[in-house]
Amino acid sequence: MKSINSKIINLKYGKGCKIIKPVNIYGSKFGNNVFVGPFVEIQNNTLIGDNTRIQSHSFICSNVTIGKNSFIGHGVMFTNDDLKKGKITRNSKFFKKTKIGNDVVIGSNSTLLPVTITSGTVIGAGSTVTKNINVKGIYAGSPAKLLRKI
Amino acid sequence: MKSINSKIINLKYGKGCKIIKPVNIYGSKFGNNVFVGPFVEIQNNTLIGDNTRIQSHSFICSNVTIGKNSFIGHGVMFTNDDLKKGKITRNSKFFKKTKIGNDVVIGSNSTLLPVTITSGTVIGAGSTVTKNINVKGIYAGSPAKLLRKI
Amino acid sequence: MKSINSKIINLKYGKGCKIIKPVNIYGSKFGNNVFVGPFVEIQNNTLIGDNTRIQSHSFICSNVTIGKNSFIGHGVMFTNDDLKKGKITRNSKFFKKTKIGNDVVIGSNSTLLPVTITSGTVIGAGSTVTKNINVKGIYAGSPAKLLRKI
Repeated sequence: MKSINSKIINLKYGKGCKIIKPVNIYGSKFGNNVFVGPFVEIQNNTLIGDNTRIQSHSFICSNVTIGKNSFIGHGVMFTNDDLKKGKITRNSKFFKKTKIGNDVVIGSNSTLLPVTITSGTVIGAGSTVTKNINVKGIYAGSPAKLLRKI
Repeated sequence: MKSINSKIINLKYGKGCKIIKPVNIYGSKFGNNVFVGPFVEIQNNTLIGDNTRIQSHSFICSNVTIGKNSFIGHGVMFTNDDLKKGKITRNSKFFKKTKIGNDVVIGSNSTLLPVTITSGTVIGAGSTVTKNINVKGIYAGSPAKLLRKI
Repeated sequence: MKSINSKIINLKYGKGCKIIKPVNIYGSKFGNNVFVGPFVEIQNNTLIGDNTRIQSHSFICSNVTIGKNSFIGHGVMFTNDDLKKGKITRNSKFFKKTKIGNDVVIGSNSTLLPVTITSGTVIGAGSTVTKNINVKGIYAGSPAKLLRKI
């Protein structure tokens, strides 16, 4: 059996970034002042903007772009396969994309299908985001629905 | 880039406590016989009562008090910011409080907004608790609702 | 205080298995080519079939059997106590069983009560599975409901 350690490889980063280990990061690009808490996995082909915080226990999959000044809570899970076809895609060519804007807050334990979320949006803790969010507001629930515009 | 290890600092604890590392604990107070599973983060200004178990993958944020003989399942996320204002609070002065009684069971993967939960209450796995629970019973769902009194 | 490290003990495994540490595994049996991502806990009396993948942040409790070619997403929490009696069972004699078939996909951040899930089933991310699934299909939500047969 092959048993290997989590590690940080192929990571490009700006000034003032901080990571609390253990984490498993392979192939990401960070802006300046990015914070990553413990027990986080970040896959390749991801982009995390300036001043954005990825809190403990979160998982950022391939093809996720997160803007500046955003806050990804604890235990947030991103996905790049919407499972509608009834099976997972093992070929990375078919992975879907997620784009999170600037100043977005994703509450802890939320789950995100491959979506676009407009800047300034807030997702309440424990939500499941199943559709693109184009109107800035506060959303919560499973599936997440608009509580009010902001 | 600053890359530092998870650690246990500023922790006060009673007799018979047990922790499975890696964990990231900074500034908490444990009673006797507290158990903490692996991949757990516990922030400062928290109190965990005698015989309470915090299972793997859970996150206990600042301003959480948990009573005696309680069971916090796996992947349970506490929060101290209800996001209703449309942004997170970065000033700890404004963090809200959570108070969990004695003999409380929080099912795995549950999410708790800053609430009070009365002693003897059971929260089903995968729930999101959005309001104070003052009546002892079994609650489940997102948002969690009373299934029956006990 | 007793502070011990996560470890891999009493694990039987076939050919070609791969584990990304840190993990906490005690008493499991893997077939061939099983993959286990980082920050995973697997308890004793569990069985993971050939080619099945357990992704990061997941928790597999005692009495879980998973078939071949299945995919357990990130942050998936299994349970063996349905909490209906209003308290947890500390005696392993009373732990309930979970049986997952072959070619099953469990989306990330899903929660599973002790259930049986038939082969070929897909559970959408962020779902809570509260009942046995005997009809092959795509299920999602909390509680998980049939979206369509496949």
